[in-house]
Amino acid sequence: MNMQADTADQKLRARARRVIPGGMFGHMRAAGLPAGYPQFFERGEGCHIWDVDGRRYVDFMCSWGPNILGHKHPLVTEAVQRQMAAGDCLNGPTERMVELAERLVRLVPHADWALFSKNGTDATTTCVTLARAATGRRKILAARGAYHGAVPWCTPHPLGVTAEDRAHLIEYVYNDIGSLEAAVEAAGDDLAGVIASAFRHDYGFDQELPDPAFARRARQLCDEKQATLILDDVRAGFRLTLHGSWDLVGVQPDLSAWSKAIANGHALAAVTGKDHLRDAASGLFVTGSFWCGAVPMAAAVATLDELERIDGPRLMWEMGQLFRDGIAAQAAEAGVGVRQSGPPQMPTILFDDDADFSKGSRFCVEALQRGVYLHPRHNMFFSTAHTVADIDFALEATRAAFAALADG
Amino acid sequence: MNMQADTADQKLRARARRVIPGGMFGHMRAAGLPAGYPQFFERGEGCHIWDVDGRRYVDFMCSWGPNILGHKHPLVTEAVQRQMAAGDCLNGPTERMVELAERLVRLVPHADWALFSKNGTDATTTCVTLARAATGRRKILAARGAYHGAVPWCTPHPLGVTAEDRAHLIEYVYNDIGSLEAAVEAAGDDLAGVIASAFRHDYGFDQELPDPAFARRARQLCDEKQATLILDDVRAGFRLTLHGSWDLVGVQPDLSAWSKAIANGHALAAVTGKDHLRDAASGLFVTGSFWCGAVPMAAAVATLDELERIDGPRLMWEMGQLFRDGIAAQAAEAGVGVRQSGPPQMPTILFDDDADFSKGSRFCVEALQRGVYLHPRHNMFFSTAHTVADIDFALEATRAAFAALADG
Repeated sequence: MNMQADTADQKLRARARRVIPGGMFGHMRAAGLPAGYPQFFERGEGCHIWDVDGRRYVDFMCSWGPNILGHKHPLVTEAVQRQMAAGDCLNGPTERMVELAERLVRLVPHADWALFSKNGTDATTTCVTLARAATGRRKILAARGAYHGAVPWCTPHPLGVTAEDRAHLIEYVYNDIGSLEAAVEAAGDDLAGVIASAFRHDYGFDQELPDPAFARRARQLCDEKQATLILDDVRAGFRLTLHGSWDLVGVQPDLSAWSKAIANGHALAAVTGKDHLRDAASGLFVTGSFWCGAVPMAAAVATLDELERIDGPRLMWEMGQLFRDGIAAQAAEAGVGVRQSGPPQMPTILFDDDADFSKGSRFCVEALQRGVYLHPRHNMFFSTAHTVADIDFALEATRAAFAALADG
Repeated sequence: MNMQADTADQKLRARARRVIPGGMFGHMRAAGLPAGYPQFFERGEGCHIWDVDGRRYVDFMCSWGPNILGHKHPLVTEAVQRQMAAGDCLNGPTERMVELAERLVRLVPHADWALFSKNGTDATTTCVTLARAATGRRKILAARGAYHGAVPWCTPHPLGVTAEDRAHLIEYVYNDIGSLEAAVEAAGDDLAGVIASAFRHDYGFDQELPDPAFARRARQLCDEKQATLILDDVRAGFRLTLHGSWDLVGVQPDLSAWSKAIANGHALAAVTGKDHLRDAASGLFVTGSFWCGAVPMAAAVATLDELERIDGPRLMWEMGQLFRDGIAAQAAEAGVGVRQSGPPQMPTILFDDDADFSKGSRFCVEALQRGVYLHPRHNMFFSTAHTVADIDFALEATRAAFAALADG
């Protein structure tokens, strides 16, 4: 590559700056990543992605979650091609919607029914609205710093948001029973529901798995107050278990919001719920032009089938643990303090004494230059396409990255 | 067909009732249509759709808008297949996003930039949030009865909605300058923006094209108050013109919301805007897991190319006008009072003395039984796949439907 010439990524960024505000928007804006990360991509195959300059990476972001079986998984592709040959966006749903709802009801213990939409934000917003509709009350308790979407009631960047958009939100601290009890107390007779992420996965912090005592107390408080317990499983859903993430701590929510990995990258979201919310749900008007689209639903059925057949969560746990063990050994060897948090399938790696993330950023850039796509602040994602060879490849890159870090 | 046995549609409805609240949700719920309409579909081809019992219809709903070139249009399919072979949902956008933004900026006079999302509601919500972000004010003026989406700030069925969700909305009456001036007055120093549909297409009413004087006054008031004029072109966009629907009345908005027909049925929405809103837009955090998906963007580029090449709006106007003339002649012949409103590409047909829509419903059921899918209350949609032969076929069915109506 001639270093004098612009890269394809630089050329596209220049074109994009003219026709897209800031050149890019949202969570996939490369401005949120260290210099050197590409903005534009060309293709994907299994757990590998290629940027527009032809550089290949073993990918540990998986499209920030959606890619759970790997890009272009043959069974998903086959289901998609079959459905495309029939029809996608018609005047109503196809049988695929019923099949998918039946599949979720069978897989997820709390799920007596399902509704479908397109974005994680659609699903969390439907859950909150449904909690209010079912209870006739208004207050929603949400954890401070938790991400539940990017519209005014929940966006972490409240530009253009009015005070009224959040008038009925009360904050608690994830895993802090006292703070949850205080928030319930503050809601008084007006408690509609409690929303909680599958685990604490706030941007730039060590992750925390749910304390089972906290999850049980949340369930108990909702039962006592006849309020709705909402699990935001958008980010974690189907990676830790196929049965809803709090099934692992023995707690069933009343409603769950799903999206990201549900259809291996096809645009789909879902809400599942218990029977006692069925009537309220059938009265709710939630809809979108493409929500009955059959192709993403066919992709979802194929994705869930395959995840079940191969025990996807277990595979991702194994590869995640292999990677975690390797990183831990390399960090110890290099004498670098590293904190690995969250479930192995969705790890966050943060460095000690690194308030500005400069160490983590350097580490990730070194790995990137060696063909490994990590994230310095956000949790990462494994797919079932990651093999031992991919982890070995990645650990060679991280070993060199630790060495570069040690060299200062 | 053995009339004793359940139809495939009935069997699917029974399965759906167990796992989907009310058996179906949103605007595609067949419960909102006369008895006899199918809920579930099997396939689509051009302007024809087949229900799960194998009945074929010439379709005048076009998936409630998205299908603008006809199902499985070869050029769109080719672009989709090509992009699927590369990649769809990656760790960032592909070149397709830049191409699509460039295409919209070239096609749409007011568009200096574009952002992308998945639902029409995403786009209208982004416009409203951006108007508030750009002006630092809160009040949004919206026409009474207009549909701008299905979330708390705008849903027509406010179950689960709090008063605060709409605290900063002020209503005006579409095409009524006095009411708009009064709403501007009521907003005082806090006017962020005015949102208006491309034309008045409220459910169950005669449609109204925008009065040019009204559109000009809306522009003028926004200029005077330095407020944001938002065009909701989600439903009408690309059917009347490729340049933004108010281009036809010589008025350019500051922001437009697009979705439905933009990618011929693939899930995509867009916001386009003027330069003075670029900075505010680049500060806004709007995002979703699948918003960078390259396949819908490839479909959109192919769709817009083809609509431009064949002058799609003109073709749809011609077929729409042919159908309208035929209906008018048949109604006159049958001595039935019928009101046809809206642009020919998106007609609404309502019957005189039919407050409960029973005449319209009977008419539509008669047409349905003859293989023509109409809607008794909502505006309909033409595609460029409708041919003279399809219109002739439809008019034979409607002639019989008028006759059945006359027979009592």
